[in-house]
Amino acid sequence: MQRIIDISMTIHEGMQVYKNKDEKRPKIYNTVNHQTGKVHESRIDIDVHCGTHVDAPLHMLAGGETIETIGLEQLVGPARVLDLTHVNDAITKEDLLPHGIQRGERILLKTKSSLTDEFLMDFVYLREDGAQYLIERGVTLVGTDALGIERAQPEYTTHRPLLRNNIVIVEGLRLGHVEPGSYWLVIAPLKLTGIDAAPARAFLIG
Amino acid sequence: MQRIIDISMTIHEGMQVYKNKDEKRPKIYNTVNHQTGKVHESRIDIDVHCGTHVDAPLHMLAGGETIETIGLEQLVGPARVLDLTHVNDAITKEDLLPHGIQRGERILLKTKSSLTDEFLMDFVYLREDGAQYLIERGVTLVGTDALGIERAQPEYTTHRPLLRNNIVIVEGLRLGHVEPGSYWLVIAPLKLTGIDAAPARAFLIG
Repeated sequence: MQRIIDISMTIHEGMQVYKNKDEKRPKIYNTVNHQTGKVHESRIDIDVHCGTHVDAPLHMLAGGETIETIGLEQLVGPARVLDLTHVNDAITKEDLLPHGIQRGERILLKTKSSLTDEFLMDFVYLREDGAQYLIERGVTLVGTDALGIERAQPEYTTHRPLLRNNIVIVEGLRLGHVEPGSYWLVIAPLKLTGIDAAPARAFLIG
Repeated sequence: MQRIIDISMTIHEGMQVYKNKDEKRPKIYNTVNHQTGKVHESRIDIDVHCGTHVDAPLHMLAGGETIETIGLEQLVGPARVLDLTHVNDAITKEDLLPHGIQRGERILLKTKSSLTDEFLMDFVYLREDGAQYLIERGVTLVGTDALGIERAQPEYTTHRPLLRNNIVIVEGLRLGHVEPGSYWLVIAPLKLTGIDAAPARAFLIG
């Protein structure tokens, strides 16, 4: 039996949210408990981009495809974790070149966001030229431990080309405890339909 | 590459909920879209027992353990789907005996709930003696395609003994399209903490 490594963010009311915006915080509330009834039941009210999640094209493209169009075949299979913790601002083509990325790979970017549970306003993102390089190489999925794969690029020039090329974007992974290398990946988003994203459980086997 | 078989219920506002109670329905709402802003974002407000989900002991036991205590090691691995679609009311020890259940198995019960997307008020449940038999056999997980593993038993004499014995309960699976037999199972609940359940994506490989 190989080891299962959880790479999901725990969802709780005090967790990091994008730019620390209050309206993006999850709400978790009890509806009945062992004092008020015979069982304990709760509800969650969360942004679908909360914690570890998968973006659908609709998130960044008007008229784009919605979350149910991303099949489990794209989200489950071999993957590689790249160490990019030395990068300070943005991941460029130059940063990716030494990793010998191959057609069909699923690539997870381990950045300095994995070193903290706080939201980093200057989180390391995948720059436009890095995204173009991943498209050229023909990757099928790119994941990051930051809550966004992009920051401060007008016209979303990382998200949009990736999504137009049907490359799955996974954000909010936890990779601080993961050694770079090859694994078998499971990204398991809630089975939502017709919307722009879904929160997910994610783990590696290896 | 083996086939991935999704066994999750799609989460949408018109989906089946327990006893068709309105207060249990999911709410899915848009917060910004390509007409009102530059991106499309949504929130979901759902009962943690909505659709396919994992119960934690706290759900049925005062002071019981919460959802984060159920590890991925319990939720991922070999499993067997049993055909119980011929059962009309409740699954008994007699119904389970012919299946030769072994210590450590994960068992998924395919019932008549898999034949419809509607909530069945008379859904087939696991009767107390069936649950006791699974405990004796030493199974580690029991899943059902009904929204509940139990119906109309005072003192929850199926849920409580299973949970006291650390047997994971998964409810709301979709098994109508699954041939009985052996598979590799993934149950991937959202990484919630401190509460009574978590909605999950679930699939088989085989």
